[in-house]
Amino acid sequence: MRWLSRDQERAWRSLALVMHQLRWALECQLERDSELSFIEYHALARLSEDPDHRLRMSELAAVTNASLSRLSHLVKRLEGWGYVRREPDPTGGRFTIAVLTDAGYSKLVASAPAHVAAVRQLVIDEFSAAELAQLRTMCERITTRVEASTWKLELT
Amino acid sequence: MRWLSRDQERAWRSLALVMHQLRWALECQLERDSELSFIEYHALARLSEDPDHRLRMSELAAVTNASLSRLSHLVKRLEGWGYVRREPDPTGGRFTIAVLTDAGYSKLVASAPAHVAAVRQLVIDEFSAAELAQLRTMCERITTRVEASTWKLELT
Repeated sequence: MRWLSRDQERAWRSLALVMHQLRWALECQLERDSELSFIEYHALARLSEDPDHRLRMSELAAVTNASLSRLSHLVKRLEGWGYVRREPDPTGGRFTIAVLTDAGYSKLVASAPAHVAAVRQLVIDEFSAAELAQLRTMCERITTRVEASTWKLELT
Repeated sequence: MRWLSRDQERAWRSLALVMHQLRWALECQLERDSELSFIEYHALARLSEDPDHRLRMSELAAVTNASLSRLSHLVKRLEGWGYVRREPDPTGGRFTIAVLTDAGYSKLVASAPAHVAAVRQLVIDEFSAAELAQLRTMCERITTRVEASTWKLELT
């Protein structure tokens, strides 16, 4: 077992604090302004990026990094509010498609300005373009490791 | 309203993905190996760093970035498992102290190796010392902004 050095511990702690604090600040902003959770907002945003506003549940699970059972609860909530509906996949009966409704798209359009303003204020405006590129590279190196790890989605 | 440029959007998305995926991977690891959530583990870890294994609830709220009402639920759960107990603060009757019990300390000691191994595998081992210092600086710049923001702890 190798423990962390003092500098490694400090780096890890600063990243853990971002995960706690930034996540919590954005949850609060979305809850206050839009009555959505961070992951609900991101699910609507990912659906809106498909030209037809629809994704297989398994694709939506991958982009929101939810397990399928967790995503199923999430989509049921969004469906209850009328923002999403589920349909059988016409190309394969085993699959379910999540479709962004017009109400869901309107909700996203209404929610985005305040959320983007928060993201700017808390993250983007702090960094130069070169620093943002650096931050992106570092984050992508982490997610590559996470995606390769055996822990991901192991619990549902 | 200023939207994000393509590069800003990419950088933001990579950070959001770290918050989703890394957090989730570590939640899964802790749940599987120790039956603790990420924030429960961090609360035990912060208490263990105090020489007397005790902190005011308000101090613990600050380091875990939980609101006081959220923290109160968290500490009640930890108390139910025998890992923490609450005491009135001898220096000020208005305050409550959270104390790490021996069972709580043992739980942390038993949980730490697998968690540290996960943190190494998913984050630390990816970066050189210089890169970790860079990552730390960037994360600290973000948390400075979050701490200065009006959203923090606004909802409880």
